[in-house]
Parts: sequence; structure tokens; C-alpha cells
Amino acid sequence: MPGPGPTNSLTDVPGVRVGHATRREPGWLTGTTVVVAPGAGAVAGVDVRGAAPGTRETDLLEPENLVDRVNAVVLTGGSAFGLAAADGVMQSLYADGLGWPVGAGAGEVVPIVPAAVLFDLGRGGAFDHVPTAQDGRSAYEAASAGPVPQGNVGAGTGARAGGLKGGVGSASWVLEDGATVAALVAVNSFGDAVEPGTGLLPAQRFGYPGELTTGIPNEVEVRAARERAATTYAEQPLRPGLATVIGVIATDATLTKAQCRRTSGLGHDGLARAINPVHTLLDGDTLFTLAVGDRPSPELPALHALMVAAGDCVTRAVGHAMLAAESVSNGVTDLRSYRDAFPSAFAGASA
Amino acid sequence: MPGPGPTNSLTDVPGVRVGHATRREPGWLTGTTVVVAPGAGAVAGVDVRGAAPGTRETDLLEPENLVDRVNAVVLTGGSAFGLAAADGVMQSLYADGLGWPVGAGAGEVVPIVPAAVLFDLGRGGAFDHVPTAQDGRSAYEAASAGPVPQGNVGAGTGARAGGLKGGVGSASWVLEDGATVAALVAVNSFGDAVEPGTGLLPAQRFGYPGELTTGIPNEVEVRAARERAATTYAEQPLRPGLATVIGVIATDATLTKAQCRRTSGLGHDGLARAINPVHTLLDGDTLFTLAVGDRPSPELPALHALMVAAGDCVTRAVGHAMLAAESVSNGVTDLRSYRDAFPSAFAGASA
Repeated sequence: MPGPGPTNSLTDVPGVRVGHATRREPGWLTGTTVVVAPGAGAVAGVDVRGAAPGTRETDLLEPENLVDRVNAVVLTGGSAFGLAAADGVMQSLYADGLGWPVGAGAGEVVPIVPAAVLFDLGRGGAFDHVPTAQDGRSAYEAASAGPVPQGNVGAGTGARAGGLKGGVGSASWVLEDGATVAALVAVNSFGDAVEPGTGLLPAQRFGYPGELTTGIPNEVEVRAARERAATTYAEQPLRPGLATVIGVIATDATLTKAQCRRTSGLGHDGLARAINPVHTLLDGDTLFTLAVGDRPSPELPALHALMVAAGDCVTRAVGHAMLAAESVSNGVTDLRSYRDAFPSAFAGASA
Repeated sequence: MPGPGPTNSLTDVPGVRVGHATRREPGWLTGTTVVVAPGAGAVAGVDVRGAAPGTRETDLLEPENLVDRVNAVVLTGGSAFGLAAADGVMQSLYADGLGWPVGAGAGEVVPIVPAAVLFDLGRGGAFDHVPTAQDGRSAYEAASAGPVPQGNVGAGTGARAGGLKGGVGSASWVLEDGATVAALVAVNSFGDAVEPGTGLLPAQRFGYPGELTTGIPNEVEVRAARERAATTYAEQPLRPGLATVIGVIATDATLTKAQCRRTSGLGHDGLARAINPVHTLLDGDTLFTLAVGDRPSPELPALHALMVAAGDCVTRAVGHAMLAAESVSNGVTDLRSYRDAFPSAFAGASA
């Protein structure tokens, strides 16, 4: 029976590890998340749909280009400065002897580490407190195959989703043929991940029963949230680079680079269903897809089902990010979590 | 005050004309829709997001390519055979002296007519009854600046939306700065434009109050529709090219080719919110954007608002297509309209 995997997170894909480096000491509110591929790496693709992206090593993912395996993907705060975190992940992989073999010797490898950034500059207080290579190394060292820590961690530490606190979220799905697909996102969107008229998470409609919230937000909370959201944008006029949702989809099916890219495209539809608006001029929304290839290459119906499930995993991962996020009030950034803004959405919940 | 334009359709954009050629005589169920740009043409862009597209003249729309104005866009049934309809539109434009000037003489022009097709082969009974150049000429001759006929007309004549009858739909929005943006789509999707759990049109949440339906579909109708949808796909296994949503966004703002393409991208988010799944391996979903340029080039906040409204227009246009579609039962194709499948969704409506 199709349903979420054991941890309902990205690490349900065998061999995939996730690590966070979280910087929330005074003056800081940022971090880095690394997704580490098993062994010799995973086949990968990317779809960049936001108009203000910050990325590295995405050109090699074009289907016609040579390199067809990546060793890790870095998602990070710090806007384009945060790209430095990938340097640290490269160094750690190199030390472990992992990378694209370019020389005669066993250790002569170039680790392939695509990366995408989100904008959180200044949210901790200091504009220049951004992730560095050291944060990349820390995230790599923290990488684990266990359940993925979510909320205000790693790349989601300083994230904002519309007028609320954003963060990292993840979800998985096991398909009818036994293949697993999963998504991890860092939600830092210009648009809302909450329906302004109802206070519900749009993700709600795409989760299985009971996965997300259990109650209906009351009108007072809905009105208050709408007013706070309006204030957020009144105080911070439209500027490019304010936002960006970044993420990784992974599967144990065998896919080509081009199929990985198409899967990322369906993932962006999942974003569109969870967040409105998204992919705007102010977002740099970027989704990677990794295929670790433990299972055979799917025929069309199974491939279709996998891509559709990837989109739903992204939608549900956004919902999980909103549920896991925690309010932040540090004197510079004052953002409520979904849980604090809509306590009545959890009426009747056991936990 | 922002709101829909006078006709709530594509022709609210000054100078834009829409014409349909509808082929529903015995053995036929297909047609062609043409969107004619005013005067010397409109700046245009395209975003092809489905995995099984059928198009012509889309490469010239790449921002780096020379031609920056198109004279018309053809949306047509007939799968790739239907591309012939664009020949007829070219001939008609040429006869009117309209096109890209390539020679010294006034009439030495090449009309620029991008086109996209949807799959409806065999739905009228005969596989080879497809639109031809004559249908392109007929659609061009029928082009009018009046309210756009919607439903089972033009490219929407043979369209199917998941388990229901699809069709042509259109919607418009006048922005705070006075610019108009509008969309026209021919909905022929693999995925549903109806929420399987509720029978509601997802577009409902993106329309202004009272724009779409007024009631809540009852449980009996919802269950019956789900069962019919399941049968539709059981009888017709997954094959590439079964589906495709095609459309045109238009605005009177001045945009670059690249901005037109980005607007089409936000339009695809509008599709993702109205139809689930969409952009699959079985869809060839393609959206053009035309900027007729009567108004000045918008600054960032206005451009952002225009692109977001374009996405909402696409969502609402899908809703209008579903409401305007009529049931078809011709011995080969047996598809109910949304109105016939969910009469209770119209409870309390005056018309």
C-alpha cells in the first residue's frame, strides 16, 4: 500500500544522509543543510524556476553535459555569500576520497557539490554573519541517515514564509511498485504558505488524513495573521532577493539526468500548490533531484507516478516546514510560527 | 479598484482579437483557436512545461533571438497534425499585409505565428479528422474583439479535463495601476480540474467571490464523478500525448521577450493550482504571453503584481473552461461537463 516511508523524510531513500549546521547564537540566524548521496554519488538534475536564484554547479547538471553524478547538494542561507559553504563540503568529501575521478590515483577526485542559497541576510542582527566553509564541514559531519531534524535548523534557521516563520521540512512516499520518493525544502518564500482566507495550510489538501493539522483556525487568528502579514510587507518593500525556496527531491529509482530535471519540474508544481505566489521575480526557487539508482529504471506508468508523488512530497514538505518552524523574536526579526499564529488549527490534536 | 475587465476574457486587452473554428459535424470533434495581435504584432514569450509538447515557431521566442513580435498565436486540436492550421493563419495575415518585414516592398513580410497543439485525435470518431489550414483561415476570419466564446469551441472542442469534458476558458484582471492582464486556455489535461474529495473546482479559491460556483457539490455526485474518472483511465491506459493544456496570456503593459517568458512561467503555477497533476510526461502544456505594449514598461512592484495576476487569471480561466464546457456523447467520446456532473455546485445560483 502506498504511504509515507518510516521517517516521512528524505532519509527514507536508502543511503541518503542529511546534516544541518545551525547558527543561532546572538547576532546570527542562518545555517546550512547538506544532502549527501551514497557511495559514488547520485544521478542528478535541477530546475531553477525563481527569477533571483543563487547557485553553483548547476550547469553541469544540464542533461547534455558530461558529469552525471553528484556527491552532495548544499542548501544554505547567507544569500550568494553562503555559496562558500559548498567549499567546506567539497573539502570533507575530498578528504573521504569521494568525487568525480579525474586523475590516475584513487584520491584524485573532484567532489561534485551543486548548491543553492536563500536570502536571510541580517535576520540575526548582523548583515555579514553568513555561513562559511566551516558550516559546510559541520553540516557534512552531522549528516545522518536518521529522521531529518526540521524547522529552524540548517538552511531554514533564518527562513521566512510570507508573514510567518519558515524553515526546513521533509516528507516521503513509498509508491505502489515499492520505490521511495522524498523531498526536503527550506521554505523562505515571498508568498504565503497559509491560505489568507482560512488560515489553513494549502498542503493540508495533499497530505494523507491526519498528517498535518486537525482543527480549523478560528476567525480571530486568521484576521490577526492577515494584519501581521500586511505589516511585514509594508515595512519591507519589494526588493529582489528577499525570498527563495530551495530543496532536494530524492528517489531510489534509477533515473536519467533529464528525468531528474523533469521530476524537479513537477516538484515546482508542488511548491505552487503550497505557496502563493511562488517563482516570482523576488524568489530564486530551485529544486534538485537525486536518483540513487538502487532500483530499476521505471517504465512510463511508474515513472509518471513517481514524478507526481514527487510534487506531492514537495507540497507536504512545505506543510511540515510550517508545522516544525518556531517563532523568532530577536529584536531584529519578529516572526511567528504557524503553531503560535494558529493554535486552533491543532484543536483536538493529541500532541 | 482591481477586478476583472469588462468581458472577463482575453479581449479585455486592447486590440487583441480571438477567433474559433469549431469542427463538430458527425465524425469530428476538434477545432482551432487563434489569438490575433494588434497592428505590427505583440512582443511574446513562451514557456513549455509539459513533457509531450507539439509546437511551431517557439525557438524564435527565445529572448536572445531576433524576432521580437508575433502577429498571432494558434492553439489547436489535432495533435501535431493540427500545426497545419497555422499555415492558414499565415496566409490570411500575409493577405492582410501583416508580418515581419523581410523585403523592400510593403507586402514582403513573413507572418510570425507560433502555435501549440493538444491531443484530441479520434474523439469525433475518425482519427484523421484534424484541423487544416482552412480551419486556421476560418478562425482568423472569425476573430473578434468581443467577449470570447468559451467551452466546446475552437481548440477546446474535443478537449478532456481528467474525467470530465474540457474546453476553452478565459479570464481577465485589471491591476491597481490600470494595466490589464488576461488569459485564455484550452483545458485538455491528464489531471483533474476538480478536487476528487470535494467536487469543487480548485480555481474557486482564486476567483473573486461569486465568480465561479455558489454551492457545495453533494457526496453522491462526488462519488459518482470519482468512479467515472477511474473508469476513464482504466479504459485508456497511460500513453504519452493523451493530454495537454495550451494557452495565451496577454497584457497591455510593455514587457520584454524575457519578461513575457517569465510571465508564462507564473501562468504555469496557475495551472498547477487549478489542475492536479499537470506538466506530466503525458501533457505538452505550453503557455504563450503577448505584450501589446500600449502602456509603459512597469517598475518592479507593478511587474511583480502583473505576473502574479497572470497566474491567477490562468487558474480562473481553467475554472471558466470547466463551467462553460458541455457534455459530449457521440458514441466514441462520452464525457460529462462539470455542470452536468455536479449540479449541486450551482445550488442557489440565479442562472
